[in-house]
Amino acid sequence: MNKSNNLDEIFNARSVAIAGVSKGSSGQRFLKNLLKYGFKGEVYPVNPKGGEISGLKVYSNIRDIPGPVDYVISCIPALLAPQLIKDCVAKGVIAVSFYTAGFAEIGSIEGIELEREICRLAHSGGLRIIGPNCLGIHSPKAGLSFSSSFPRESGRVALICQSGGNATCFVDAATQRGARFSKVISYGNACDVNESELLDYFASDPETEIVAAYIEGVKDGRRFYQVLKKLADKKPTIVLKGGYTKAGAASAASHTGSLAGSGEIWEGVLQQTGAIQVHSLEELADMVVTFSYMSPPQGRRIGMFGAGGGATVLATDECIAAGFNLPRLPEEIQDELKQLVTCQAGNILKNPLDLSSVNFDESFYKITRRLALYEEIDFIIAHVPLGIVLPFAMSSNSVLDFLTDVTIKLNSEVNKPVAMVLHSVVSSENWKATLNAQQKCYEAGLPVYNSIAGAAKAIDRFLRYHGNRSDK
Amino acid sequence: MNKSNNLDEIFNARSVAIAGVSKGSSGQRFLKNLLKYGFKGEVYPVNPKGGEISGLKVYSNIRDIPGPVDYVISCIPALLAPQLIKDCVAKGVIAVSFYTAGFAEIGSIEGIELEREICRLAHSGGLRIIGPNCLGIHSPKAGLSFSSSFPRESGRVALICQSGGNATCFVDAATQRGARFSKVISYGNACDVNESELLDYFASDPETEIVAAYIEGVKDGRRFYQVLKKLADKKPTIVLKGGYTKAGAASAASHTGSLAGSGEIWEGVLQQTGAIQVHSLEELADMVVTFSYMSPPQGRRIGMFGAGGGATVLATDECIAAGFNLPRLPEEIQDELKQLVTCQAGNILKNPLDLSSVNFDESFYKITRRLALYEEIDFIIAHVPLGIVLPFAMSSNSVLDFLTDVTIKLNSEVNKPVAMVLHSVVSSENWKATLNAQQKCYEAGLPVYNSIAGAAKAIDRFLRYHGNRSDK
Repeated sequence: MNKSNNLDEIFNARSVAIAGVSKGSSGQRFLKNLLKYGFKGEVYPVNPKGGEISGLKVYSNIRDIPGPVDYVISCIPALLAPQLIKDCVAKGVIAVSFYTAGFAEIGSIEGIELEREICRLAHSGGLRIIGPNCLGIHSPKAGLSFSSSFPRESGRVALICQSGGNATCFVDAATQRGARFSKVISYGNACDVNESELLDYFASDPETEIVAAYIEGVKDGRRFYQVLKKLADKKPTIVLKGGYTKAGAASAASHTGSLAGSGEIWEGVLQQTGAIQVHSLEELADMVVTFSYMSPPQGRRIGMFGAGGGATVLATDECIAAGFNLPRLPEEIQDELKQLVTCQAGNILKNPLDLSSVNFDESFYKITRRLALYEEIDFIIAHVPLGIVLPFAMSSNSVLDFLTDVTIKLNSEVNKPVAMVLHSVVSSENWKATLNAQQKCYEAGLPVYNSIAGAAKAIDRFLRYHGNRSDK
Repeated sequence: MNKSNNLDEIFNARSVAIAGVSKGSSGQRFLKNLLKYGFKGEVYPVNPKGGEISGLKVYSNIRDIPGPVDYVISCIPALLAPQLIKDCVAKGVIAVSFYTAGFAEIGSIEGIELEREICRLAHSGGLRIIGPNCLGIHSPKAGLSFSSSFPRESGRVALICQSGGNATCFVDAATQRGARFSKVISYGNACDVNESELLDYFASDPETEIVAAYIEGVKDGRRFYQVLKKLADKKPTIVLKGGYTKAGAASAASHTGSLAGSGEIWEGVLQQTGAIQVHSLEELADMVVTFSYMSPPQGRRIGMFGAGGGATVLATDECIAAGFNLPRLPEEIQDELKQLVTCQAGNILKNPLDLSSVNFDESFYKITRRLALYEEIDFIIAHVPLGIVLPFAMSSNSVLDFLTDVTIKLNSEVNKPVAMVLHSVVSSENWKATLNAQQKCYEAGLPVYNSIAGAAKAIDRFLRYHGNRSDK
């Protein structure tokens, strides 16, 4: 049996049963999320008590379901899992995903034995297991999801994530910044479907161009190395290793029963395979956004503009610290720009440009355009610190709107990469306005970041990635 | 003349004139903010054209104002500044703060000369200048402020800030986390009142216990070193140096005309004086919150609990990376805790504790209390990742409420420092709920952080501060 074809079938499941659905249960939550997300196939709630829930007939056993069942989500107690496996095998189910926990991760001999048993049963019956102790599959093309807040559109990013909580957290955050997913899998203890099989699958999945991974441990180091290398050769692959430290690894063992390996080994492996290592979910989102929306700059020379004197000073420090340069504009361009400003702020027209005292009209755009066109500039960073009240007579949200429009126009008219940073959010109004501006940006093809430091670090990794590849 | 007494008078100004008030101007914005903030003294708008604004008579000249004027905010063009100084001197004004820009920071000989001239005129007339190119003074006891969003209550933190934008941004963000300010000053180009005089003043200001500073450059290195040392000996002093890199320093020169000095020199000076160096406004806020709400832990051993398996793994990595330990709970305590849980998640009762599968009732509190009382634990970090949906049947805001209450109770009943981290906010609802929870926390005396990494870094600096001092 070709296992990868198998994964394809799982990600394209046409019918779903949820075992362990009762009022107020996690099973019901999975059911509601699936229906709310808009799954078009058949959905079958299962509970020995039968009855009805959310307008659907509840089947007392998987075997009683009339039509075929491709995918089962299990929310039943762990001790009942072996029987469920047998029922699934009998029914001809392709895969079962266990939200159910209480297996190897609890660290007891019973838990480890139980996990081995369901694996054995599934393997001999040709059934695949996702998890246990996970949220399972999000596959927008199939209309299949464990979270109703995830986007309906399909995209180019695949996420393999050993933690369900990190998966929801990451996808929601990255979605707000325009990342769209081909497939997401929360795969927990990985007793059957594991990180290596998934990386291998995504290496040849035509819908996936970028792979993000949160991994706590690997089952087979040699195979992991091989598939990661194969994948990273073909597609940008960004890995966040959970349990990087010894204590973190101990915590990972309690979480997903993972044997984690030391931080140094991971660093070496990731570097040798060409995968990109990050250290937080925020950094993972920054990389996914960069690969989704930025084209590679020719070099490390930034043209920067934004609003706020102090914010500009700090932004400059952060870009320099990340290894970038900000070439000073030559006198002749400065003189040109001085014609465009009515204020006396000629001294700010050097790069970086603090444009908070420049009129917010067409001249503002002309200044940024001249900066972008300067031949010693490789790419542009525009930034708006939302928490400041500058220029003093404008609301920060008006400044945001204006700068967003200018930056989008610049991106469409100048043939250099442009990045947008919307930072220092301090109020609910700022938060909402930022979400709107983020959407405007990514719809226009612009990468958006939450901090200058985050943008600088991500673009640095992006440049190193392309530099390393062009060396090959 | 004792200059510090002079500063005291300025921070306690009883009457304010705003020069350059017209409809839609920055002057009007200052006026509105001052009135909205609730200044109880006399407020006099000034504009040569006279008339009326916001129900107040507009005086055509400072000299025409009937009562005394302590403090003047200037929003007039730079070229008119010398005449304003003469008028202020004639009127017996104590200080004038120039929002007006267009002086040394524009880099022209004219700008530098103009700044020198207003300084000369003010000095010979016994008038103090704040700025130019700044927002001036926030002094809650005097009811005096440039921002109507700043809190009315007075507090223990003083902020000296060379950037007006950074001042508003920082104060709003730190306020949301419970920081309260004795005095804030945005002092721009520092042609008269400068960083050294301010640090010296706050060293003996009885209302100030903690000093935060954003400084782009210093006027007199030797004096700066002396006053900073004197201040840092007496009170925790946290410094963010803007223009730490060469390009950042060039940007600072355009911003406030500052001669910035190299990053290495600053690092050395700050270390020798005992001041705490930070590298972003977020870190500055983290330190202010820590000094405002945390008592020094006895050591570096963390007891950690929170919701979310993956979040717990990452949190552990971040704490270890910052140099902390998480001592594993001994078997006998783990056995004790196992009696309190109905789930099979005994393996998570080691430290860190991922309590997402524990019942959210009294037993939850008992578990955290037992963790906190363990003698090998020096302090507690509780954390809630808002973006995750765990346990799957509860909303993240319900989890937030529950964990906030537990943590507050723990803080009041256990004699060890407790810190709260509310992180991974991904929606407007999360944002609002987080603001409420933050308020509950600081009202109960708990420090709140936006990220585990931020909390760990801040508490590390806090411990080093107290360690260094106990070595003396």
